[in-house]
Amino acid sequence: MTLRNATNRQIVLRKRATALPTSDLFEPTVGGVPTPGEGEVLVHNIYVSIDTGMKGWISTATNYASVETGAVMNSFGVGEVVESRLPGIAPGDFVFGHTGWQEFGIARPAQAGFRKVDPVRGPLSTALGALGHIGVTAYFGLLDIGQPRAGETVLVSTAAGAVGSAVGQIAKIKGCRTVGIAGGPAKTALCREAFGYDAAVDYKNAADLGAALRAACPDGVDVFYDNVGGRILDTVIGLMRVGGRIVVCGTAGTESWNPPPTGMRLERAMLVNRLRMQGFIVFDYKDRNNEALEELYRWYAEGRLVYREDIGDGLEQAPYKLAGLYRGENTGRALVRVRPDPTARG
Amino acid sequence: MTLRNATNRQIVLRKRATALPTSDLFEPTVGGVPTPGEGEVLVHNIYVSIDTGMKGWISTATNYASVETGAVMNSFGVGEVVESRLPGIAPGDFVFGHTGWQEFGIARPAQAGFRKVDPVRGPLSTALGALGHIGVTAYFGLLDIGQPRAGETVLVSTAAGAVGSAVGQIAKIKGCRTVGIAGGPAKTALCREAFGYDAAVDYKNAADLGAALRAACPDGVDVFYDNVGGRILDTVIGLMRVGGRIVVCGTAGTESWNPPPTGMRLERAMLVNRLRMQGFIVFDYKDRNNEALEELYRWYAEGRLVYREDIGDGLEQAPYKLAGLYRGENTGRALVRVRPDPTARG
Repeated sequence: MTLRNATNRQIVLRKRATALPTSDLFEPTVGGVPTPGEGEVLVHNIYVSIDTGMKGWISTATNYASVETGAVMNSFGVGEVVESRLPGIAPGDFVFGHTGWQEFGIARPAQAGFRKVDPVRGPLSTALGALGHIGVTAYFGLLDIGQPRAGETVLVSTAAGAVGSAVGQIAKIKGCRTVGIAGGPAKTALCREAFGYDAAVDYKNAADLGAALRAACPDGVDVFYDNVGGRILDTVIGLMRVGGRIVVCGTAGTESWNPPPTGMRLERAMLVNRLRMQGFIVFDYKDRNNEALEELYRWYAEGRLVYREDIGDGLEQAPYKLAGLYRGENTGRALVRVRPDPTARG
Repeated sequence: MTLRNATNRQIVLRKRATALPTSDLFEPTVGGVPTPGEGEVLVHNIYVSIDTGMKGWISTATNYASVETGAVMNSFGVGEVVESRLPGIAPGDFVFGHTGWQEFGIARPAQAGFRKVDPVRGPLSTALGALGHIGVTAYFGLLDIGQPRAGETVLVSTAAGAVGSAVGQIAKIKGCRTVGIAGGPAKTALCREAFGYDAAVDYKNAADLGAALRAACPDGVDVFYDNVGGRILDTVIGLMRVGGRIVVCGTAGTESWNPPPTGMRLERAMLVNRLRMQGFIVFDYKDRNNEALEELYRWYAEGRLVYREDIGDGLEQAPYKLAGLYRGENTGRALVRVRPDPTARG
């Protein structure tokens, strides 16, 4: 293999974040191509991910997936195997792994969600989105934690986002009434028109968010799938029905948790209405990944699960796409295309 | 029956509470003896209850069991049936019902927890406590909502109280390590000596509550059975282990919820550690009452479930016992003995 002499363009973390990530926390560099160990594969990345969770990974606070300064930025990636020391995977296969913001990365089965990806079942990029861990997050967060029943009202924050839009569609498939919360008229229109929400509330422009949500959820809320927390959570808690469930999937509404900010005390509403609030991280479900993926592929094939992507071209776009993500600039699952997708149709 | 001409001493609500209940919100009066309707029984009360939940029942805020001004104060009671229009219940039987702060009250099967009480299986008063809805609250709140596993650490607030002491003992029976939070050295001693807690923390006198709790729970907390909320909840959340459960059974640590006070935002800790927090009201389990009672009676007979009572003599004591409850003055389940207990032994 000539790869031993090839170079590997990379984006490394220069400085840990104390607030919302900015592009200057990163810098491009060139490293060597890593060598896969026993049970590992070397992947030539095609798409890498831009995730809201990255704020935590590069923060000065401890996190489940901290990235050290000087290290290649951690990310999910999908690409083509160029060398394999893993039985069952051969060069030319496409895989999903935690391959990082770089041209060439290592993937291994211990990485949550690691799998061979079939580009015939869905575009390769969806392995980083609706037909990957994003869809799986929506699936288990909604169905396992939220446990909606047909006829119930499911409210979703960041409803036009990658996770939120999948949550709304799965809830609809399960026979629920779906209401989205999104920022700005373009996103609420997307909620209604692309993702089939029964109603959508623009939290940025509502004169009275509580009143707007009450009007959109006249019977109250049975399941709140929350990606933001903060004042939106405080507002929604008063609309929850007896026995309601709140899925805590993200806290994007709060810039800094050091020190923890204050907010409305929630335990009284939780007691009186017997609410259940539960934190959820998809990696806890890694042993059940395929169960969700099979359903998601089926719904996609049936045209019942659609998605939007917002793809930047070139690895060097990654830090800028990440910063834009926290400014709410992306219109769909944020990704970076490292090189042309050889499987792309049309 | 001569009862038709008898009088009925009662305590009525004079004024709704805007803060912690005081005795002057009530006044004694004399009413008539009520007539049981079809399916109801007339009960001559022996013991009536003094409950922390009463703050909510008489508050100006809405509640699941609001008492109107001028009405007899709602309470649980155990007494002797003097007239029955309910098949299976005869005069001379003892029953538990929502009979109120009065000599004679009506009980009916629709009242949560309504049942015939056998004074041979346990003292009559325990039907209002450890062998009644208090024990049932501890049982389902801990086992159904908290779901402790053997070897886990269970932390309990108001640990020496009626519910808390039962929670601690049931957790111990289930093989858990138990840690209590109580106010003052007398109560923490009671936790360790009477109720078998492995450790107890005095929240009133700890110089650093977080440090004291960390020392008492070196492996962290798997289940927090919380009867208080507020700053104790804020402190405990940082000690919860991944996958920990918080049972919200009471909010006695916060005086007024109108307007809702602020506190530490909890959703980040809930997400990172995948915590589950759930509000719990025992009445939701009324169809499973007997399942819990049978276990509680068995543990009591085996000497594995003990309790303390703090009984005032005479109906007119009820408002004073209630006010004292919120000052933490009671040392055990707070009750009032309306008249001598004909079944009392010794």
